[in-house]
Amino acid sequence: MMAPLSPRLVVPVDVKKLPREQKVPLHNRWHPDIPPVADVTEGELFRVEMVDWSGGRVRDDNSADDLKFMDFTIAHYLSGPLRIVDSEGVPASPGDLLAVEICNLGPLPGDEWGYTAILERENGGGFLTDHFPSARKAIWYFEGIYACSPQIPGVRFPGLTHPGVVGTAPSLELLNIWNEREKSLSETSLETIKLCEVLHQRPLAHLPTPENCLLGKVQEGTAEWHIIANEAARTIAGRENGGNCDIKNLSRGSRIYLPVFVEGANLSTGDMHFSQGDGEISLCGAIEMSGFLELKCEIIRGGMKEYLTPVGPTPLHVSPIFEIGPVEPRFSEWLVFEGISVDESGKQHFLDASVAYKRAVLNAIEYLSKFGYSKEQEQSGLG
Amino acid sequence: MMAPLSPRLVVPVDVKKLPREQKVPLHNRWHPDIPPVADVTEGELFRVEMVDWSGGRVRDDNSADDLKFMDFTIAHYLSGPLRIVDSEGVPASPGDLLAVEICNLGPLPGDEWGYTAILERENGGGFLTDHFPSARKAIWYFEGIYACSPQIPGVRFPGLTHPGVVGTAPSLELLNIWNEREKSLSETSLETIKLCEVLHQRPLAHLPTPENCLLGKVQEGTAEWHIIANEAARTIAGRENGGNCDIKNLSRGSRIYLPVFVEGANLSTGDMHFSQGDGEISLCGAIEMSGFLELKCEIIRGGMKEYLTPVGPTPLHVSPIFEIGPVEPRFSEWLVFEGISVDESGKQHFLDASVAYKRAVLNAIEYLSKFGYSKEQEQSGLG
Amino acid sequence: MMAPLSPRLVVPVDVKKLPREQKVPLHNRWHPDIPPVADVTEGELFRVEMVDWSGGRVRDDNSADDLKFMDFTIAHYLSGPLRIVDSEGVPASPGDLLAVEICNLGPLPGDEWGYTAILERENGGGFLTDHFPSARKAIWYFEGIYACSPQIPGVRFPGLTHPGVVGTAPSLELLNIWNEREKSLSETSLETIKLCEVLHQRPLAHLPTPENCLLGKVQEGTAEWHIIANEAARTIAGRENGGNCDIKNLSRGSRIYLPVFVEGANLSTGDMHFSQGDGEISLCGAIEMSGFLELKCEIIRGGMKEYLTPVGPTPLHVSPIFEIGPVEPRFSEWLVFEGISVDESGKQHFLDASVAYKRAVLNAIEYLSKFGYSKEQEQSGLG
Amino acid sequence: MMAPLSPRLVVPVDVKKLPREQKVPLHNRWHPDIPPVADVTEGELFRVEMVDWSGGRVRDDNSADDLKFMDFTIAHYLSGPLRIVDSEGVPASPGDLLAVEICNLGPLPGDEWGYTAILERENGGGFLTDHFPSARKAIWYFEGIYACSPQIPGVRFPGLTHPGVVGTAPSLELLNIWNEREKSLSETSLETIKLCEVLHQRPLAHLPTPENCLLGKVQEGTAEWHIIANEAARTIAGRENGGNCDIKNLSRGSRIYLPVFVEGANLSTGDMHFSQGDGEISLCGAIEMSGFLELKCEIIRGGMKEYLTPVGPTPLHVSPIFEIGPVEPRFSEWLVFEGISVDESGKQHFLDASVAYKRAVLNAIEYLSKFGYSKEQEQSGLG
Repeated sequence: MMAPLSPRLVVPVDVKKLPREQKVPLHNRWHPDIPPVADVTEGELFRVEMVDWSGGRVRDDNSADDLKFMDFTIAHYLSGPLRIVDSEGVPASPGDLLAVEICNLGPLPGDEWGYTAILERENGGGFLTDHFPSARKAIWYFEGIYACSPQIPGVRFPGLTHPGVVGTAPSLELLNIWNEREKSLSETSLETIKLCEVLHQRPLAHLPTPENCLLGKVQEGTAEWHIIANEAARTIAGRENGGNCDIKNLSRGSRIYLPVFVEGANLSTGDMHFSQGDGEISLCGAIEMSGFLELKCEIIRGGMKEYLTPVGPTPLHVSPIFEIGPVEPRFSEWLVFEGISVDESGKQHFLDASVAYKRAVLNAIEYLSKFGYSKEQEQSGLG
Repeated sequence: MMAPLSPRLVVPVDVKKLPREQKVPLHNRWHPDIPPVADVTEGELFRVEMVDWSGGRVRDDNSADDLKFMDFTIAHYLSGPLRIVDSEGVPASPGDLLAVEICNLGPLPGDEWGYTAILERENGGGFLTDHFPSARKAIWYFEGIYACSPQIPGVRFPGLTHPGVVGTAPSLELLNIWNEREKSLSETSLETIKLCEVLHQRPLAHLPTPENCLLGKVQEGTAEWHIIANEAARTIAGRENGGNCDIKNLSRGSRIYLPVFVEGANLSTGDMHFSQGDGEISLCGAIEMSGFLELKCEIIRGGMKEYLTPVGPTPLHVSPIFEIGPVEPRFSEWLVFEGISVDESGKQHFLDASVAYKRAVLNAIEYLSKFGYSKEQEQSGLG
Repeated sequence: MMAPLSPRLVVPVDVKKLPREQKVPLHNRWHPDIPPVADVTEGELFRVEMVDWSGGRVRDDNSADDLKFMDFTIAHYLSGPLRIVDSEGVPASPGDLLAVEICNLGPLPGDEWGYTAILERENGGGFLTDHFPSARKAIWYFEGIYACSPQIPGVRFPGLTHPGVVGTAPSLELLNIWNEREKSLSETSLETIKLCEVLHQRPLAHLPTPENCLLGKVQEGTAEWHIIANEAARTIAGRENGGNCDIKNLSRGSRIYLPVFVEGANLSTGDMHFSQGDGEISLCGAIEMSGFLELKCEIIRGGMKEYLTPVGPTPLHVSPIFEIGPVEPRFSEWLVFEGISVDESGKQHFLDASVAYKRAVLNAIEYLSKFGYSKEQEQSGLG
Repeated sequence: MMAPLSPRLVVPVDVKKLPREQKVPLHNRWHPDIPPVADVTEGELFRVEMVDWSGGRVRDDNSADDLKFMDFTIAHYLSGPLRIVDSEGVPASPGDLLAVEICNLGPLPGDEWGYTAILERENGGGFLTDHFPSARKAIWYFEGIYACSPQIPGVRFPGLTHPGVVGTAPSLELLNIWNEREKSLSETSLETIKLCEVLHQRPLAHLPTPENCLLGKVQEGTAEWHIIANEAARTIAGRENGGNCDIKNLSRGSRIYLPVFVEGANLSTGDMHFSQGDGEISLCGAIEMSGFLELKCEIIRGGMKEYLTPVGPTPLHVSPIFEIGPVEPRFSEWLVFEGISVDESGKQHFLDASVAYKRAVLNAIEYLSKFGYSKEQEQSGLG
């Protein structure tokens, strides 16, 4: 008699509770000293549940005030870290590669809804904030593979669900690299980046802050908490450990190859998206939701050196590899919108992919507006 | 404040209980007088849970005895019937078309396993029973979209999950047509079908029998039960009401257009398959499992006449239409095996698609045997 | 300086000439003694041009008379045979496997049109001849990947182009097996196949006949010609050598693994289809056209024994394997029509796949008739 | 009797002749006064042949000198302009939208080869020119849908063929807008774009120059030629008229909706690619080839205003829309490489998509180098 391989639930969440009230504590920073909440053995199928990035602060209602006044130091509430060990109980070690297979994923039963949003120009902003300065929110309800929104009537589409954030913990050495380069960027005078005026309302980098810092098992207010909170990396940027990668095809059957920087790998996941476009245009451009992942891990000993080559001054300047799986919605035809490196004032920029991308997105929005949707509806819809 | 559209659970099942012990009673026959177990409103998202076709008689172990000695008069345990009404509460009526959308489906949480099997030649047999006369069973464990089997090591593939049985209740008039034509076939002397010797071990048709008859809310042993049990159609054949269609692509996003023969339509579903090949070669050729469906129904008033044209002597000789959805595993390349209308003795038959199909299947099995699998393993694997 | 790999044209055709007038002679029978028209070396890219199956007897006009009075002893005009040798000039030998890759294919430049047809009940008939007894023809014009027909206005679709016939020459031993089994079938009294009455207008098998026999380099009227013509197999049936397989996905990038029965393999191809449905319902159900193939061959020495297992009394009872390639039109959704083993009179047949398939096809035709097309239009359109 | 719709050849090319020797003259600039070489009627299927972008200056040999010493003022040699008229002979007019359907495309028969290249840092450079400063060339030979290269052994893949350049002629007003904004960018001091140092070897914009200017029917040396040559826009940048869009999926079945700025639309095409990656990394990153297009045009009267909304100060600041067709190679799985906005020195840039993209490309190159390919091989292979 064999036991069915029902996935082991290692991180349950209760969406009716606040992040700091969850039975298995959550975290919203990257740091080597955030202790694992559970062990997972190589090869076993396990289930991780996650709150949405905001930990439930965005509500299923008609007002965008929750986003307008959002404090983004809370982002992103993650489940984990998970300590990965092999069949002999030997943990993954720095230099290994952690292969994470997404066997299944979806919304949490009983919580089948999500939202897209435009952030307030003065609080968060976004890629098109000059065009869409006011906070807006669209609620999406899920009907299995389909999503529809009362704010965007007539639209119903099959989603391509994926986690926005999946990453391993950085080593202290890597964390210092992050903090230094982000600090130096944040000190860059606006002068030198005047080419970037399209984005100037936004902070150049999100530096460590104890504000709203949640560190899992590390109790708030303790000396240890203060040390970690002051140096832990924010989760908004993607980095060498993966993190906030927002890859829209990272769905069922995908495999992620993450570098291991600390013993046990300390895998964390969160920021589930019911679906997303090519890029997360407004910072809330994907359909944000709570959800679950069913995962399987494999430890590739020494794989970091074997498969990842650093691009940068240290062996730590690597990037994960994402293998996209075989299951996603099939479309017979789709539209491509071209963008050129000329901004809305008609001024040309030198091979500026950001300007070109922005231009392409605006073209898409204008096109959709021909069908009677407001531009805010479309940006919410576009992701 | 809007309520999330979490699917309403209209038929729960407990896989630890026997079919006749389920809180919402199951049934294993088609008959207009099997009373609905629940009402469903057009447009609402609802969830139906189903035991496997055998109601749990096939076990997760290494012995095929459960199949060798199976009493097939139990097949198939179905959930329902469901009475479909419109927003005004007016039920679907004969002549309408019932559009059933599969929004989501899958195994039951905690019961993520299934089985393929070869039936005993003397009990059930199957398409290749002369080649595979002994009962065999392969257990499959599910890891999200993937299935693997201890009996077929080295094989792991993404499934294309679907219900094997979905249908509406027949009217008494249609039921009589079924019983008459099946009775007349079963009386056909073997003489006249000697061409079919490849299949001669099997009954020509499965006629009504009270044996193991389960009729939902109709209490066993009552006079009513005896009347229905003696005329209710078996569920093994596909018929005008859909029924045991075993269409492998009938997965997420598919829509089924079923003719309505009785007031309320009386929709029933069951026989979930984790995955299946092109045709169910051995009678247990799909990966059989318990599971759930999340459905949405639409009543197309008068649609039966408008969209379905009878092929046969009466207006009831119609067939449902199946619209395949956009989500299924993507494969870059696959193999096709050709079959010709020549049997294993070298004798040619006149354009006999059954012989040709059998031949193609044998070719596929022989090919796979080159990779070290036994033919039984392959047939189980092939579906 | 390297030479571009422009495919070598080994068989040119001129569609303005009759089959027997072609510079490189064609053939319309299978026989080991039809001499090769060219040598092809393993690994080289070569081009074969082909007339349509009828050799131009079906014309681009509004009359179906060419089909009504067609003499089917002409079918199919094939290009070849080609003698396949390895880089040392050693020909493929019996027992080898010939892998044929379809690198490219299409209509002949300047002849971008084709036709679908319904055959006359009294001359050829077809699967649905009782329903469609009169000859009909629809002309299709090609616009690159798309086809449209003046007879079926409003329909335009991307084709999935493929050769209907691809095969190697049989050995004399295999040829004898074919002739014996087909002779014995043709002698079967109608009595014993009364179940097949739906098809009774058609010959049970097409036996060798010198009538309209074209044997490539073998000059008509010679003693050799008479011997071959009286024993050469017709090309209408698919057999162990591949032949008329009509696999709709056998398009760009596909690989065909053919058994080799004679020295040199003697590969022949023809019967190009712009596109076809699942099965060639009317015998002219695909869009028939002239066309070209760009092929590459590989000889797998001893591969027949290694990869093909006979299903039948002799080692020659094998079947080719078809590997479908990665390029074909993508469709988001499609319809499936169910067929049950009950004929149009309402009579049930025992698991008769032919009856069920016929029923499914009729359902599809009836469905399409709802859109204002005549049933003849649809059958032509359906393939 | 109907005439087959064989596409009408409106622009033939002879790859053995120089661009200026072609029977139907080519052009390599955008200007309203370059006269049409042919009329095309809405709805007719027509064929355009094109030399490769270099007009045959890049040769099928082992030396990259042709690229190392290339004079880029020749780019791109285009076929056209074509004057599009409706069935009444009324030409497309400014404000209309021109829908161009790609019915078919491919290499030119007899010229089935192409090349990818890395440009010399001091002459052309490219996105990764700091990493790959020396000119390199890989020759690719086509075998139908497949391409393989002697310089990159072991690689063979199905291409996704498309035109790199497709566009309409600008009006004089639009041309002036281009020239002004590009002139002002080219005058931007390097100071202000020091963030872009990764790209600093390249000109900021390619301004009009009579050098190597080819203007179709306008005879070289004439007064008219001098006027046009001095103001005609170069073809290297994509702009409001489409132009050098390099969209890799723009293959069979695609439709392009181009704004019409001059009477007749004056459609030009060129720069055929056998296949390309996501972006043309080295400026010769696609497999460059000569080729043909089979096209169909439709004039959407007033469509520019109806479907395109300007993004910029004038009604001319529009962008074309590209509808991707249903036929392209199918892949079960693929890899995604992540890029972050940190350059190779470890310095972080503010949300710089160009830096991130560069980083992702380098990661892909490093990954492939694990399989024994040199980085130059990979960059050529990557496109």
